[in-house]
Amino acid sequence: MKRLAILGSTGSIGQSTLSIVESYPERYSVAALAAGRNVGTAFQQVLRWRPAVVSLANEELAGELAGRLAAAGVTGVEVLGGTAGSVACATHPETDFVVSAIVGVAGLEATHAAILARKPVGLANKECMVAAGEILTREARERNVPLLPIDSEHNAVHQCMRVGTAAEVKQVWLTASGGPFRHLPLQDFASITPEQALKHPTWVMGQRITVDSATMLNKGLEVIEACRLFNLPPEQVRVTVHPQSTVHSLVEYVDGSILAQISVTDMRLPILYALAYPERPASSLTFDLAALSRLDFEPPDFARFPCLRLAYEAAARGGVHCIALNAADEVAVEAFLERKIPFLGIPRTIETVLEWTPESHPETIAGVLEADSQARERAREVVSAAALRV
Amino acid sequence: MKRLAILGSTGSIGQSTLSIVESYPERYSVAALAAGRNVGTAFQQVLRWRPAVVSLANEELAGELAGRLAAAGVTGVEVLGGTAGSVACATHPETDFVVSAIVGVAGLEATHAAILARKPVGLANKECMVAAGEILTREARERNVPLLPIDSEHNAVHQCMRVGTAAEVKQVWLTASGGPFRHLPLQDFASITPEQALKHPTWVMGQRITVDSATMLNKGLEVIEACRLFNLPPEQVRVTVHPQSTVHSLVEYVDGSILAQISVTDMRLPILYALAYPERPASSLTFDLAALSRLDFEPPDFARFPCLRLAYEAAARGGVHCIALNAADEVAVEAFLERKIPFLGIPRTIETVLEWTPESHPETIAGVLEADSQARERAREVVSAAALRV
Repeated sequence: MKRLAILGSTGSIGQSTLSIVESYPERYSVAALAAGRNVGTAFQQVLRWRPAVVSLANEELAGELAGRLAAAGVTGVEVLGGTAGSVACATHPETDFVVSAIVGVAGLEATHAAILARKPVGLANKECMVAAGEILTREARERNVPLLPIDSEHNAVHQCMRVGTAAEVKQVWLTASGGPFRHLPLQDFASITPEQALKHPTWVMGQRITVDSATMLNKGLEVIEACRLFNLPPEQVRVTVHPQSTVHSLVEYVDGSILAQISVTDMRLPILYALAYPERPASSLTFDLAALSRLDFEPPDFARFPCLRLAYEAAARGGVHCIALNAADEVAVEAFLERKIPFLGIPRTIETVLEWTPESHPETIAGVLEADSQARERAREVVSAAALRV
Repeated sequence: MKRLAILGSTGSIGQSTLSIVESYPERYSVAALAAGRNVGTAFQQVLRWRPAVVSLANEELAGELAGRLAAAGVTGVEVLGGTAGSVACATHPETDFVVSAIVGVAGLEATHAAILARKPVGLANKECMVAAGEILTREARERNVPLLPIDSEHNAVHQCMRVGTAAEVKQVWLTASGGPFRHLPLQDFASITPEQALKHPTWVMGQRITVDSATMLNKGLEVIEACRLFNLPPEQVRVTVHPQSTVHSLVEYVDGSILAQISVTDMRLPILYALAYPERPASSLTFDLAALSRLDFEPPDFARFPCLRLAYEAAARGGVHCIALNAADEVAVEAFLERKIPFLGIPRTIETVLEWTPESHPETIAGVLEADSQARERAREVVSAAALRV
C-alpha cells in the first residue's frame, strides 16, 4: 500500500490522482492533501479520503476548513495552512509518495522538502523544474530519490528512455499539438483575442497552460524541464509538431532507433505510471490502434512561435534565465487575458525581461523564489509600460 | 571482441552482417562463415575475413572452395560441407555469437546446435522459429541462451518489450506494409502474375519472401515467430497494415501505453542491435523524423489475405500445423513463380495441406524435419493436381 501526499489535490491533476486511488484501493491510499483556496472541494475530499493531514493556502482558509470539519464531526485530521502546511503534507511520516501538482512556484518549497525527506515524487508541476530543476535534480540524485514525470511528454520520454542507457540517447523529441494557431497567417497574430487563445484543439486544461500552448511557451518550459529531468543539453531536446497528440514523445538513440510512446490523452495514464513505477497495473485507458488512421509530424515554426525560441535561449543560459522566462510569462499571460497587452505582447514581455535580467545562478530555493519575484516585478513594469502604449 | 559465426553469409542478411563487422572492427570479428552454393562469394569472403572455418551446402562445393583457397595460398581455414559443416560453424570454440540467416529449414540444425552449445543467437531465419520455435525457445530458456530477433518487426518488439514485464504486455502489434495488392479489387486477385507479385513497395528482398509479402503469409509466419519468441498466444499478436514501413512494430501494455519503434528500413539496424545487445553502438543509420510527414495504420483485410487467417489458425493449433503451413507455402510459391498454379492457388494449397495434416507435436528437430518433408510431399501432390486442372 502506497500512501500518497497529493499537493494540489483540488486541481485537475489532483482530482485525477484521487480517481486513480479510487480505482486501485488495494494499491493506494491518501495520507495528506494540500489544496489552495477551494475550501468546499477540500472539505469533500477530506470527508471521502480521511487523510492524516490537510493543508490550504493560508491560516484563514485552514481555520474555515477546520470549522466545517468539526461541525461535520470529523476528528483526527490535522488542518494546516500556508507553505508550512504543504511542506508538512509532503514530509508527513505517513507519506510514502508525493504527487507534486500545485501550479506555479507555490509548490516549490513542498516539492523540495519532499526530496530532502527522501520521499519519491511524481512531478506534475513543470514550473518547479523550470525554476529550480538544477537544484531539485541534484538533491534528488544525491539522495537517490526517484523523480517521476507526470507531464504526458516527459512521462513518455521516461518510458522510452528505458530501452537504452542515458549515454545512448541521441536526442529526445517532445511532441507539441501546435496549438490553435498552427495555420493562422502570421499577420493575424497581432489581433488574437483571449477567447481565441483559450480554445485548445486537443487538451482541456487551465487558462495559463492553454494560452502557453497557443504561444508554444508551454513546450518551451517542457524543453527546459526535459533538460533538467533527463540531464540533457537543450540541443538534445527537440520539438516536433504532432497535431493528433497521440504520440506523447519520442526518444532517438545513437544507433538510429526511435522509440515512441502512444496512448489516449488522459492524464490518469501518466499519473498511474508514476505512482506504480516500475510496475504497470492494468487500466481501462485503452488506445484503439485499429482506429488510428494517421499521425503527422512537422518541425515547429520558430518565426510564428518566438516564445519557443526564447525558451531554448533560457535553457542554454540556465539559472536565473529559466526562472525569469517562467515568471515573465505568467505575468504576461495574465495581462493578455485581462486585455492589457496583445497576444504578441507575451513574447515581447518575456524577451524584455530576459534582457533586463542580470546573470546569476541561484543555489537555494530561497534564491530561486527571490529571483522569481524580481522577474515578476520587472514583467509587471514591462506590461504596464506596454499597456500605456496600447 | 565478439567473434561471429554467420550462417548464410552470402545472403542479404549475411552480407549486411559483414558490413556491420566492417564498420565496427573493434567490436566484431568473423570466426565462421556458412554459405550455400555461391562458391565465388564465399571465396571472396574467406579472403577478406579469414574465418577459422567455412562451410558450403555440400562436400562437392566445399572441395571446390578448398581448391580455390589452396590455389590462392590461403591456409589455416577449415573447409567443410553440408549440415555437419554449418553445425561446426555454429558450435566452433571460437564462435561467441551465431547469426542464423540461412533461408528455410536448412538452417534449423545449425541453429539448434548453437543453442545446445550455449551460443547466443541472432535470429534472421523465421522458418526456424515457425517450424521448431517451441523446441528452440524451450531449450534456449533451459540453458539461459539469448535469442535475439533480427527480423525488423521482432527486433522492434524486443525493444518495446524492455519498457515493462512480459506479464504487463496486453498485445503486440506487428506492422505490415500490406504488400502491392492492398488496394487491388478482390476480383483481380485471380489473375495476379509472378511479375506483379515480385514488386514489393518498400523492401527489396528474396523472391519467396516478396511473394509471401504479397499474400501476407509472411506476416502470418511472423505472427507465429512472435508467439514463440515472446511466449504469447496468437490472440495477443495482432497485425496492423502500415504502408510506410517506418514503425517496425508496437507493444501495447495493460496500463494503456503503447510503445513503438521507428527507424530507417535497413536490416543493418536490427542486426547491430542483436549483435550489441544490451548495448547500442552509434550508427549512421539515422531516421529523419523532421521529414516524417505521416504514418497510416489500418486493420488487415482477412478476406483479401486468406494466408494470414491460415497462419493464425496454424499458430493456435501449434506443432505440426506451423511446420505444414511454412512447408506448403514454400512449395506453393515456387509453383506460382513457375506459373504452375495461380496466385490464389497459394492459399488453396496451404489450406488443403493443413486439412490433410494429421495432428502431431514433434518434440525433436528430426521430428520437425520429417513433418516438414511430409508436408512438402503433400503440397507437391496438391500443386500437381491443381496444375492439371489449370
